[in-house]
Amino acid sequence: MNWNRIIQSVPNFSEGRDLDKVEKIVSAFRGKKGVKLLDYSSDSDHNRTVVTVIGEPQQLIAALLESAKTAIELIDLNLHQGQHPRIGAIDVIPFIPIKNFSMEETIELSKELAQQLANKLNLPVYLYEKSASTPNRENLARIRKGNFEGLNSKMKEADWLPDYGPNLAHATAGAVVIGARMPLIAYNINLNTTCLKTATQIARDIRYINGGLRYVKAMALMLENRKITQVSINLTDYTETSIYRVFELVRIEAKRYGISIIGSEIIGLVPMGALIDVASYYLRLEDFNINQVLETQLME
Amino acid sequence: MNWNRIIQSVPNFSEGRDLDKVEKIVSAFRGKKGVKLLDYSSDSDHNRTVVTVIGEPQQLIAALLESAKTAIELIDLNLHQGQHPRIGAIDVIPFIPIKNFSMEETIELSKELAQQLANKLNLPVYLYEKSASTPNRENLARIRKGNFEGLNSKMKEADWLPDYGPNLAHATAGAVVIGARMPLIAYNINLNTTCLKTATQIARDIRYINGGLRYVKAMALMLENRKITQVSINLTDYTETSIYRVFELVRIEAKRYGISIIGSEIIGLVPMGALIDVASYYLRLEDFNINQVLETQLME
Repeated sequence: MNWNRIIQSVPNFSEGRDLDKVEKIVSAFRGKKGVKLLDYSSDSDHNRTVVTVIGEPQQLIAALLESAKTAIELIDLNLHQGQHPRIGAIDVIPFIPIKNFSMEETIELSKELAQQLANKLNLPVYLYEKSASTPNRENLARIRKGNFEGLNSKMKEADWLPDYGPNLAHATAGAVVIGARMPLIAYNINLNTTCLKTATQIARDIRYINGGLRYVKAMALMLENRKITQVSINLTDYTETSIYRVFELVRIEAKRYGISIIGSEIIGLVPMGALIDVASYYLRLEDFNINQVLETQLME
Repeated sequence: MNWNRIIQSVPNFSEGRDLDKVEKIVSAFRGKKGVKLLDYSSDSDHNRTVVTVIGEPQQLIAALLESAKTAIELIDLNLHQGQHPRIGAIDVIPFIPIKNFSMEETIELSKELAQQLANKLNLPVYLYEKSASTPNRENLARIRKGNFEGLNSKMKEADWLPDYGPNLAHATAGAVVIGARMPLIAYNINLNTTCLKTATQIARDIRYINGGLRYVKAMALMLENRKITQVSINLTDYTETSIYRVFELVRIEAKRYGISIIGSEIIGLVPMGALIDVASYYLRLEDFNINQVLETQLME
């Protein structure tokens, strides 16, 4: 891959049951120069498909626009049922800077696509995360509250005018939420206890909302098959809160109850730098530079 | 970089003082499609230049052949003085498989270049390391013993007929040693002691030659500026002997003397996989696959 700049996007579409429709939507990311489809998976309970795609900035937003056009043609939210909250046929489009592209540029790119979706497809657009126009729009759950069904009454509130597009939900496709964010790492730590209450306490102790680490979201759950519990973590900025710090903090909190870490899991993709940080910490590396990693040279 | 297969080579040339000559030799690796010069450094005490270059197989050996031709024109070993042992103007050419290229294919490639150097430049060639034709040729030091000056008498021994080319040293360029090997990691561990004797004992305890880890070479040295000692390690196959195992073994041996590890250093390039192994060990990762590293996807 000979791309100078690379952006990742993880668009979520409100269709996870009719796989013919999913294929048509996803086809926007296939066979295009400067765009590479990494993964997509559909969940029928959620009735939702999550796509992972990387590309050069302009090629990527062109493909996203095309996928949105197809989604609008194929999805009618008035007929949509599923467990997952949603306000749009293309429900959310996060942008993540990967290579030679700053967060500022990523925010600009998200606004460029927002403008196009408003102008060309007549969609109302909310900006979220780092692209948010006000602090109360940073959080996706807050924007999505009320769902598609409550969208038109929500838009009547002065606080909830869309950032782009008409002040009226698209009749079948609702609205779309777009924004720039850091890569998110899905990271789980397994504990040798069956006590969900204790695991929940450990999750609370380490997460931001309860006074823990700044970029950690966490909850506990039971792994019935293995008869153990798990602290399930979303690490929203590994460049500020390293994986090893989360691991060591869970270890320390667990020790209080005589509980140990059995193992941990990374779900899906992880940036190389996040794991290099871990190696660097435990080996106490002095003066290590990521350019010393052979693969960094291969990517230039 | 859009290369399907990647090989690394680290050719050593017996010229480290006349930098004009060095530039002429190194220019063989510049501005060529399918070849990328990563680094080169000249040492005037050794009177030697070490080049690090990667490339697609055929493009890489073409560039190496060109550099050898220039080196033969510019270097006369009858006039060469330096601390480092050498038998050739191009003294040694290691090949290291990096991407989509097996060790078997790398051995074949080394033999292909050996044949070309013999046929086109009339150089005698010895194969070493994984390409060696007999076990007593695996070790570079053994092949190089006697130096350029002793080469013609060595070649008269039945054991030391060259693998390719004439049974006679090139009059000014000697012979060349070529072979395939695993990536070598230069790794140093710093100890909070000034006692070189103890550091040397720890180096002995962990290295292969004295009953330690299979792919570890080690020696101790004093870091005069920092008033500490260092165990200086060459890790010759990190896929079999992981960095964390070396680190932990040094920690355990040092503990016996009440000594701790201050830090460690990786010198030069390191394959990503070697550091992922370290992270995976300390985080106790379950079911982790290197394809989950985002950058692995970017390189495809």
